[in-house]
Amino acid sequence: MIKLEIENTDKSARAGTLTVDGRKCPTPVFMPVGTNASVKTLTSEDLNDLGVKAIITNFYHLMMKPGIDIVENAGGLHEFMNYEGIIFTDSGGFQMIRKGFDQKMDGDTVTFKSEFDGSVYEITPEDCIKLQRKLGSDVQMCLDYCPPYPADDEELEFSVNKTRRWAEKCKEQGGNIFGISQGGTDKKYRKQSCQDMVDIGFDGLAIGGLSIGEPKEKMYEMLDITDRTYPESKPRYLMGLGSPVDLLEAIDRGCDIFDSAYPTRNARHRSLFTYQGTINIENSQFKKDNKPIDEECGCPTCQNYTRSYINHLCRADELAWMRMTSIHNIHFLMDLMKRARQAILDGEYETFKDNFISRYE
Amino acid sequence: MIKLEIENTDKSARAGTLTVDGRKCPTPVFMPVGTNASVKTLTSEDLNDLGVKAIITNFYHLMMKPGIDIVENAGGLHEFMNYEGIIFTDSGGFQMIRKGFDQKMDGDTVTFKSEFDGSVYEITPEDCIKLQRKLGSDVQMCLDYCPPYPADDEELEFSVNKTRRWAEKCKEQGGNIFGISQGGTDKKYRKQSCQDMVDIGFDGLAIGGLSIGEPKEKMYEMLDITDRTYPESKPRYLMGLGSPVDLLEAIDRGCDIFDSAYPTRNARHRSLFTYQGTINIENSQFKKDNKPIDEECGCPTCQNYTRSYINHLCRADELAWMRMTSIHNIHFLMDLMKRARQAILDGEYETFKDNFISRYE
Repeated sequence: MIKLEIENTDKSARAGTLTVDGRKCPTPVFMPVGTNASVKTLTSEDLNDLGVKAIITNFYHLMMKPGIDIVENAGGLHEFMNYEGIIFTDSGGFQMIRKGFDQKMDGDTVTFKSEFDGSVYEITPEDCIKLQRKLGSDVQMCLDYCPPYPADDEELEFSVNKTRRWAEKCKEQGGNIFGISQGGTDKKYRKQSCQDMVDIGFDGLAIGGLSIGEPKEKMYEMLDITDRTYPESKPRYLMGLGSPVDLLEAIDRGCDIFDSAYPTRNARHRSLFTYQGTINIENSQFKKDNKPIDEECGCPTCQNYTRSYINHLCRADELAWMRMTSIHNIHFLMDLMKRARQAILDGEYETFKDNFISRYE
Repeated sequence: MIKLEIENTDKSARAGTLTVDGRKCPTPVFMPVGTNASVKTLTSEDLNDLGVKAIITNFYHLMMKPGIDIVENAGGLHEFMNYEGIIFTDSGGFQMIRKGFDQKMDGDTVTFKSEFDGSVYEITPEDCIKLQRKLGSDVQMCLDYCPPYPADDEELEFSVNKTRRWAEKCKEQGGNIFGISQGGTDKKYRKQSCQDMVDIGFDGLAIGGLSIGEPKEKMYEMLDITDRTYPESKPRYLMGLGSPVDLLEAIDRGCDIFDSAYPTRNARHRSLFTYQGTINIENSQFKKDNKPIDEECGCPTCQNYTRSYINHLCRADELAWMRMTSIHNIHFLMDLMKRARQAILDGEYETFKDNFISRYE
């Protein structure tokens, strides 16, 4: 069972609690991405220490490596990873349906070759849900059809229809499923796809196909449509977003749940969030800087290590820095979500957002 | 001040407590290697959690990267790394004096080029101690001259003389210095070099130039010489040893302190210690193995993760496994030292060693 209890709203922004089969998580929530059942460089103990209450892994990748049977043999994803928070599985729609990828579609069956060993997989929308549930995730995502950006009307119509048809087939499988709207950045198609997901009756409603290269204003327009079309009572999950400013803007437009590899990927590229904007920790200016990454930050990295030390570890190719910086960036977003939530509860979200952005940018 | 209090001996094996300027550590002790002021893949919090009370870093590497001034600017190695255990600095003799390396020796001055940026360094034995102390280490190692293995009499004589002369110059600098004996695997030269270090009057006595390719029996012979020549009251540090069986054999021959990159390097090559011998965690046989790496092990990795999960992380190139396996291998040696110490205190070291080896091999 998926349930969102809303504790307060501030214009479109919402502060609440997401419950999935007894597992709880305050919203707005940012979910780190653990594609291969691992949030890169971190352990599940790290996730617990950082207060991460929900993550998303990827069905498509896990099916190929290590294989569904191995995760099942371990007792499912919670046991396999030793992680007790809410686990979403992405359907892999975004990975399976893309240009230049060796994939065929025959009716509702997607056929593709594993990039690892060349073995062939045939997946229907029904399989996609069944296999996600075999993995033991708490929330399964619909198999959706994401058009490229930009896309013409024909592509958008095709993808919206395919996404609806597949969503209906997914819904028939039962379970804790989020429907995903598509429709590119076209108001008509986006609205239609949102309405389709509402009509099918999903308990959770996701927004797909954004943050793939379109201008910010277009994305915000689409979020306004979602905000008006999706019922207030259902959790809304904007997929693939992870920059601090984008997150605050999306919360302002009624989104509750987010995921992205952005904070961990940036951390591994030495780009670190601070309340004064991002810094590249390998820059020469930090060689002799004995301050933490961010003096306002309470993460274990900032409590224990200096910019100078992390700068040195980067330059000396000492692997420990990647975990240190990943911990920092994840903690930053966890803290940002906590602050955003408090601001919504206090009815001061707009001020909070404006203050954050004016310091950050 | 360097002091060893011996609590019990069992034939040549010794259980005691090493004190360096108030910092304490039970012996026998294995020191993880943190060449660049970082034990590879681990943080100083990890070292504390693992009960690591002493580590060794490397003057030669730190001089080039990040440079003495940066560590000094941080307040020394303890502050730089945020590590409160005993920090040894290796002199870099082993790195500076080697065949095929772009290095010149003019009297007592070693001149070499940085492998990073080509800049030229000139180091005398006096500089080597002074600069180690600038790094803020607790224990400085003498600049020694390690001959290759095998070496002829001429090379051995040259190295023993050079090592004595440099040791005298190092000793004049004062501080907490370990002298290092050389002499290859030749009884006469080894005995002479050991006696030289005793005569110079070091508070700590190291054994260098072993575990570089010679047969085990040769190494054991040299340790028997050291055991007879070094006074019982001084701590004895056998450099560069890290395999479980080697450590137990060396303890049996009167050694107290050890260091090696062996456990962490092996961990990063997927080779893990267990009380039943080493395993390669990436092997297919572990794909569906839901047991921990070693059921007898109390390390955080074994408490939280299965062979199956770690096997998957290796195969999926998920970096987190390297820290998990490093934690396990370091913990294994910490635990082995603790067990060895207890066996010495109980007067049952021989039995303990034989039991361990018969299961391990």
